[in-house]
Amino acid sequence: MATVVDRAIILLSGGLDSATVLAIAREEGLERHALTLSYGQRHIAELEAARRVAAAIGVERHLELAVDLSRIGGSALTADIPVPRDRDPVAVSEAGVPITYVPARNTVMLSLAVAWAEVLRARVVLIGVNALDYSGYPDCRPEFVAAFQEVARLGTKAGLEGDEPRIRAPLIEMTKPEIIRRGLELGVDYGLTTSCYDPAPDGAACGSCDSCSLRRRGFEAAGVPDPTRYAAQATW
Amino acid sequence: MATVVDRAIILLSGGLDSATVLAIAREEGLERHALTLSYGQRHIAELEAARRVAAAIGVERHLELAVDLSRIGGSALTADIPVPRDRDPVAVSEAGVPITYVPARNTVMLSLAVAWAEVLRARVVLIGVNALDYSGYPDCRPEFVAAFQEVARLGTKAGLEGDEPRIRAPLIEMTKPEIIRRGLELGVDYGLTTSCYDPAPDGAACGSCDSCSLRRRGFEAAGVPDPTRYAAQATW
Repeated sequence: MATVVDRAIILLSGGLDSATVLAIAREEGLERHALTLSYGQRHIAELEAARRVAAAIGVERHLELAVDLSRIGGSALTADIPVPRDRDPVAVSEAGVPITYVPARNTVMLSLAVAWAEVLRARVVLIGVNALDYSGYPDCRPEFVAAFQEVARLGTKAGLEGDEPRIRAPLIEMTKPEIIRRGLELGVDYGLTTSCYDPAPDGAACGSCDSCSLRRRGFEAAGVPDPTRYAAQATW
Repeated sequence: MATVVDRAIILLSGGLDSATVLAIAREEGLERHALTLSYGQRHIAELEAARRVAAAIGVERHLELAVDLSRIGGSALTADIPVPRDRDPVAVSEAGVPITYVPARNTVMLSLAVAWAEVLRARVVLIGVNALDYSGYPDCRPEFVAAFQEVARLGTKAGLEGDEPRIRAPLIEMTKPEIIRRGLELGVDYGLTTSCYDPAPDGAACGSCDSCSLRRRGFEAAGVPDPTRYAAQATW
């Protein structure tokens, strides 16, 4: 076993942000244990993307856990609610919490990550949340991450021993173009990732959901080519 | 739909404590939505007990969610680690965190409860944790519950709207005999519940694990008959 000091759990969704986080963990020399949650999301192409990203960047282990949040519902990603399209990202973020918010999803994911961190004695849990671009999501804010840090300290055996993992959100204050530029510096192949909330059956991105819009604009603003494979019928 | 003010999520394990909590929720006139987590525990007789208890006390809905924590392991309840037997409960609680602690289990369960509460607009989440008898478990302490309350406030859409569920742990300062007496006042049939960490294939309790010990002593101290069905070969 490697020394415990450099072991990290990385929440890996298959999207652009968490791929960047995994590359940051590699850059920092951390031993990488990737955790992907299959939660009943409609965009299961994410899971295949997570596997590709884990293989490309390299991990000690990639654990996929299933918990069917579609039985709880309440989101366009997990229930039979249409995914909004062709909206301006700034207007969306000012309009409150989008219908694509999955109730308490990041809390559920961090809980499982902290559980695994405790077993592996990992010192760090990394999550790719981002407060600027997704300001509508409550569980992407620094104050949420800080509150969860307290739960990790008080609710675990590791915490009793003063050894709880540190919850880090290295992208939290970055813009999408900044994230893309950082990832490219670190050698991330964003063609392996997917961000679309409602991809075609073959995995092609729709190009028009909020997440596709944000991603497309991110590549434009970063001034680099967008490697995303969009569906042939995309009309934006 | 009932009015939202009296809707509650109750974490229901099939054990003595959560059955009592469900009865308290009935006594308070709350609309009861029971959530049971199938987490890969070795004592799956718990799940059957949870169904019996939900049916007996009455719930609007009983949702069973599966997340396989045995893939994370680290506990005698979820990994191939022997369940300790014939130990004195006081000595156990003074000896630190027992090997039956499941990493971050209550954090995972509360996360899912808060997610469901948000969808149902439930105002209360009830959990049967108990700090006195299980002082070895970090996630059974009042400070853990308080920290999770902050996560529920900061990590949810409901919280942004000032409408996050209140996390209540009505048994947290009670002893086991006090819990049993309270439950009996409320009409709980403890014969439907199971507490054993390692029951026989037919569901009979072993009588000698820490949880059985605590339960047996609780009935003795309460001065009421113990309705538990113990395995024929139990030797305590």
